[in-house]
Amino acid sequence: MQKLEFTLSAGPVDVSAQTLAGLARPIQYHYDDDFKATFRRCEAKVADVLRTTNDVIIMQGEAILALEAGLRALITPGMHVLNLVQGVFGKGTGYWVSAFGANLHEIEVGYDDAVGADRVEEYLDAHPEIEMLCLVASETPSGTVSDVAAIGSMCRDRGILTFIDTVSGVLGMETLVDRWGLDYVVTGPQKCLGGAPGLALVSVSPRAWEKIYANPAAPRDSYLSLLDFKEKWLGEGRFPYTPSVADVNGLEAALDQALAEGVDEVIARHAAAQRLTMAGAEAMGLTFWARRREIMSACVTSIRLPEELDNATVRDHARHKYGVMLSHGQGAGNLIRLSHMGSTAGGFHSVVGLAALGRTLRDLGMPLDIGAGVEAALDILSAER
Amino acid sequence: MQKLEFTLSAGPVDVSAQTLAGLARPIQYHYDDDFKATFRRCEAKVADVLRTTNDVIIMQGEAILALEAGLRALITPGMHVLNLVQGVFGKGTGYWVSAFGANLHEIEVGYDDAVGADRVEEYLDAHPEIEMLCLVASETPSGTVSDVAAIGSMCRDRGILTFIDTVSGVLGMETLVDRWGLDYVVTGPQKCLGGAPGLALVSVSPRAWEKIYANPAAPRDSYLSLLDFKEKWLGEGRFPYTPSVADVNGLEAALDQALAEGVDEVIARHAAAQRLTMAGAEAMGLTFWARRREIMSACVTSIRLPEELDNATVRDHARHKYGVMLSHGQGAGNLIRLSHMGSTAGGFHSVVGLAALGRTLRDLGMPLDIGAGVEAALDILSAER
Amino acid sequence: MQKLEFTLSAGPVDVSAQTLAGLARPIQYHYDDDFKATFRRCEAKVADVLRTTNDVIIMQGEAILALEAGLRALITPGMHVLNLVQGVFGKGTGYWVSAFGANLHEIEVGYDDAVGADRVEEYLDAHPEIEMLCLVASETPSGTVSDVAAIGSMCRDRGILTFIDTVSGVLGMETLVDRWGLDYVVTGPQKCLGGAPGLALVSVSPRAWEKIYANPAAPRDSYLSLLDFKEKWLGEGRFPYTPSVADVNGLEAALDQALAEGVDEVIARHAAAQRLTMAGAEAMGLTFWARRREIMSACVTSIRLPEELDNATVRDHARHKYGVMLSHGQGAGNLIRLSHMGSTAGGFHSVVGLAALGRTLRDLGMPLDIGAGVEAALDILSAER
Amino acid sequence: MQKLEFTLSAGPVDVSAQTLAGLARPIQYHYDDDFKATFRRCEAKVADVLRTTNDVIIMQGEAILALEAGLRALITPGMHVLNLVQGVFGKGTGYWVSAFGANLHEIEVGYDDAVGADRVEEYLDAHPEIEMLCLVASETPSGTVSDVAAIGSMCRDRGILTFIDTVSGVLGMETLVDRWGLDYVVTGPQKCLGGAPGLALVSVSPRAWEKIYANPAAPRDSYLSLLDFKEKWLGEGRFPYTPSVADVNGLEAALDQALAEGVDEVIARHAAAQRLTMAGAEAMGLTFWARRREIMSACVTSIRLPEELDNATVRDHARHKYGVMLSHGQGAGNLIRLSHMGSTAGGFHSVVGLAALGRTLRDLGMPLDIGAGVEAALDILSAER
Repeated sequence: MQKLEFTLSAGPVDVSAQTLAGLARPIQYHYDDDFKATFRRCEAKVADVLRTTNDVIIMQGEAILALEAGLRALITPGMHVLNLVQGVFGKGTGYWVSAFGANLHEIEVGYDDAVGADRVEEYLDAHPEIEMLCLVASETPSGTVSDVAAIGSMCRDRGILTFIDTVSGVLGMETLVDRWGLDYVVTGPQKCLGGAPGLALVSVSPRAWEKIYANPAAPRDSYLSLLDFKEKWLGEGRFPYTPSVADVNGLEAALDQALAEGVDEVIARHAAAQRLTMAGAEAMGLTFWARRREIMSACVTSIRLPEELDNATVRDHARHKYGVMLSHGQGAGNLIRLSHMGSTAGGFHSVVGLAALGRTLRDLGMPLDIGAGVEAALDILSAER
Repeated sequence: MQKLEFTLSAGPVDVSAQTLAGLARPIQYHYDDDFKATFRRCEAKVADVLRTTNDVIIMQGEAILALEAGLRALITPGMHVLNLVQGVFGKGTGYWVSAFGANLHEIEVGYDDAVGADRVEEYLDAHPEIEMLCLVASETPSGTVSDVAAIGSMCRDRGILTFIDTVSGVLGMETLVDRWGLDYVVTGPQKCLGGAPGLALVSVSPRAWEKIYANPAAPRDSYLSLLDFKEKWLGEGRFPYTPSVADVNGLEAALDQALAEGVDEVIARHAAAQRLTMAGAEAMGLTFWARRREIMSACVTSIRLPEELDNATVRDHARHKYGVMLSHGQGAGNLIRLSHMGSTAGGFHSVVGLAALGRTLRDLGMPLDIGAGVEAALDILSAER
Repeated sequence: MQKLEFTLSAGPVDVSAQTLAGLARPIQYHYDDDFKATFRRCEAKVADVLRTTNDVIIMQGEAILALEAGLRALITPGMHVLNLVQGVFGKGTGYWVSAFGANLHEIEVGYDDAVGADRVEEYLDAHPEIEMLCLVASETPSGTVSDVAAIGSMCRDRGILTFIDTVSGVLGMETLVDRWGLDYVVTGPQKCLGGAPGLALVSVSPRAWEKIYANPAAPRDSYLSLLDFKEKWLGEGRFPYTPSVADVNGLEAALDQALAEGVDEVIARHAAAQRLTMAGAEAMGLTFWARRREIMSACVTSIRLPEELDNATVRDHARHKYGVMLSHGQGAGNLIRLSHMGSTAGGFHSVVGLAALGRTLRDLGMPLDIGAGVEAALDILSAER
Repeated sequence: MQKLEFTLSAGPVDVSAQTLAGLARPIQYHYDDDFKATFRRCEAKVADVLRTTNDVIIMQGEAILALEAGLRALITPGMHVLNLVQGVFGKGTGYWVSAFGANLHEIEVGYDDAVGADRVEEYLDAHPEIEMLCLVASETPSGTVSDVAAIGSMCRDRGILTFIDTVSGVLGMETLVDRWGLDYVVTGPQKCLGGAPGLALVSVSPRAWEKIYANPAAPRDSYLSLLDFKEKWLGEGRFPYTPSVADVNGLEAALDQALAEGVDEVIARHAAAQRLTMAGAEAMGLTFWARRREIMSACVTSIRLPEELDNATVRDHARHKYGVMLSHGQGAGNLIRLSHMGSTAGGFHSVVGLAALGRTLRDLGMPLDIGAGVEAALDILSAER
């Protein structure tokens, strides 16, 4: 196997040296006043990134911990929940919604498509019993996005709680938690923020807290408990259990870089990387996975593979022969992903991705014009800078 | 507040530069073959430390995650469980045992005492219905240990499952998982191993797996699921969710240092640090928290405070005035702890701890002979090296 | 100015995370036995890389320190020295040779050419008074190499001392110090070794030491003194002055990586990177700086620029507009360099270099087929791996 | 040999994690505009620390490089130079002053003494031919200081150039370069600044530059050349040779910490550490090396050893048996040094030093009251914080 030369995966992403330095800060005792201050600064900086004044909770585990914790806390037996399904994470949400006792409604489309705000509106008009809506803002495995602004605001106006999985959405697309009235929002450091995996970043609206407090089944005294964090840490300054000190330090380093660059600037950088990657992929002769360009996410460009080429084979060829780590479809379909996320959303990282993927596919029998692809990407880069 | 000069807390502990360098290794994609190999090496190295051939599971969260996960997986309704309580963690285990539906039996002693193997034997003789025994090998908040060797072996011989919380026990005391037949064993990197918090290290015996598989309530599709890890990761090489890449790299660095030094040598180093710290504390005029010397843990020496001195006040004085971070009792009692754990189990770190605690207590009104304490500690050091 | 995305300069090079971790090891006192052992291990590892049993001296400054120190120590008034000039470093050597009192002979060719072994042979036949020959094995600014094997061996057979500047030659081309009988050899960590600048690595043959000891003007009690190092450090274990602890630790990390990969393997990796970079540059329509392919160095591919394009302008455009740091000619001529050195000698780093340079030149008015260049490079990569 | 637990040496010192992180910043090309900006910021920050508007030159080697460079540049044949000798570094300066052709005058005292300003005044009155005065502000090997304020100002008023070696003086004592009119001032990062060794930090007054420019023997085209740095780097933005990128990054990290704390605050911290170390040493029964307390340096407390105890033996015992690295006399006399420098000037580091030295000496046969020593140190600490 070739030595790793480039990590261009769809999260965990390659992180900057400053973020690594953050992870390597001396480990402090979690009750050292310095560390407690660090933890609180992180909460405030996450709130800045999310454009919210809601409570921020930093859970000590991968984002999925906060998704499970949120659903367990918010769902009451028989509650009507509308779940939008356009990818594997949305699908998974639905299983949990049912398993935790809700009455599950779903609008499902192909994993190369997105549920439009108009379909949601119709459904909500027809089902006034819906109390909560779940959506995945950015389906990383398929590289598609939801119209969070429209759907979120619509729910806010109707008094419907919103449960938003935006792990790879934050900083890859606009995320205005307060303006759009998003109630329970989960993200993670290991995507567009350019941090390491290991923490779940959550914002919880007052309305969501009300719902949770009113729910006798909301976990308490559990690793899955939001209430423990709310009452012990936010309330009394006692951690419910030992936080991941290094991860918190690494998170702060990543947040500092993003805030120094500017939230809007980071979003714009991802959009620029997407433009050049899409142009390159198209010119090379590749087909996008998504049905429509408008629903493609800015942090990862998903490429549809021909049936005869298995996506895991493609990924492994690029890694083993060329030392370039891409991501495959992870169950979303026969696709391969060019990621431009966090510190790899930069321009020439996409050139590497295009060249490595192009040559891999050529090796595996696809005729492609790699040169044209690289040229097209460079044209965008030259024109926009 | 004085700038932090020394972290002498009872975990998270100050870690070595090599461990920090491990945490700062480049973040790899979790499905990069390199990272998967790292993860598997870590499992094997944890098994080496635990002296076991059982499955090792590295859960992506603080040790308490694995405690909760284990109890939820092992407990079936009405099952008779004997829980030994000699400190706050043991007490907490009991709450969970009940909450998860078991029939709770407890032998409880003061938090300055330990439950002897003989009392356990009597109880088991009288209660043949007991199916599982829970104990905390090392109650970090009070600095006491259990007789895991005797109690564990006794349970093994009777076919009783053992659930062992030894977060601060491993590497601070002998832990022979296979020889003693321990079934479910939980430890963490942030104590005697000298790593960062953020992972839970578990070994699960075949007998424990049988029990879990037979339990329809054992969590699945959950952050708390051992079965997900067993089937997806150990079985199919798929992570149930993204692991904490930096924490895993940091763990390997800490394990490498411990294994290079030698498991027995690390244990001996902790014992030596305990001898000098105890000698120093005693000569200074301090009173141990524990009733008997034999039940004091090798990784932290707990000191009983006079009633008029509050343990949080003592801790804060040492930190704010002297820049030395100690740990207080965390609910175990009015005690303060001199930690000698991981990289701080070394000799002169204890001198710092003794001097800082001694002077803090003097400032707060306790007459103590700090000089005699330091001299006594140095006598041990000089004699033993 | 665009944020730096890639450092593809001709030394200092971008270094690996392991090397950075080496630089960040705790600073030890230079007389700590641990550090002295580190220093000695570094000497032995440098000797391994140089394939020599000669003394190795690690001077605490950039490579040029050792060049000056060597010439000052070896040159006696009126001594006949033949200096080969094919680039700016060779030219500089000549100035020093004269300034330090020798009788300077030179064979000089254009900086896009190399002095052949045959011309040297003729010259030496005609000038039996020559006592020392100086050459630059790899002229980094122009990207050309010397035939060190032939010329070195020829000198050895005639009893002529050899003074070899091979700062960017070592690990970029075969360097067999003992077999070729090279007397005074200087290299540095910041080129093909993939380390940080700050140290000069020297090997000194017994014959060279004899010459130095016989020279009353050889510096003593000076930062430029080789004898101080020989007598104090190699002789008595006393450093003549405080060594650069972090640089030494970083050096060891870089050496460890090179030796783990294998000296021949590192050399082969540079050669492979050269093949694909040359193929790419040629297919793109670029012209090599060097007159003949055989004299091009494996660590950097120099491109001849058209007169109307200034090399500094090209470099700055790539850096400021694209965030890719290339190197220009540094006085060697109107050329720009694609470096593939140390950790950037890897394959896709060259793709980045080709694309960034190609697009920069296109922006500045040169018609180039960038796509064909990238394709050609990938063809080599695909064929060879 | 015991594993290293504490580095309490008199430079290189143990450095902070932030400084290590600085050393581990990615290596940039030295002509990257980012790095050039870093280099210039470092110059400005050094000027801040030195309280000067003079040119600052950062030479790429240990401080001694700048001492040699300065003397070679400033000394003209026959020039009358008064050198103050109160330790090994002052003695060495004299050798160079003579060797470089000056007419050497010296006032020499024992290495446990200091040359008073009054003696200097008398000498200057009697020798109006003196053109330059050399002094070592802080003789690290013996732990004594000079009265730089008085002597420097006196020279300034008389138009005598001052050549000041204050490698361990800066940040350990007030250093007002402009107010006192100091002409050529050399310091280094590895002492009170808490950085790594490898760079020499120099300030050069306009008057010193005049003198250098007027000196035909001032080195040019040499590693020892100040003029190269002045003309190429300060003048044209071209480095005379590749700078030590990692060391410069580490320097900036150390400077940032010092400036954030405040120059006066760092000086005060060293003074406080000295007070408690002296109190502890005295109470323990140790004898200071220096004849008078007023001439003891704030960064290292030198202890006079009884004749029968060799200082190297003492140092090695502390290191080998206790893992504590102290410094011995390095030729200044039979003394051992308790260092409190940079990040180890903090309080409890001195407690470690006192305890380790005390017990070492007791092991070697000296009767000492270690306990009283630690108590006395803690008394100071308690009273002053």
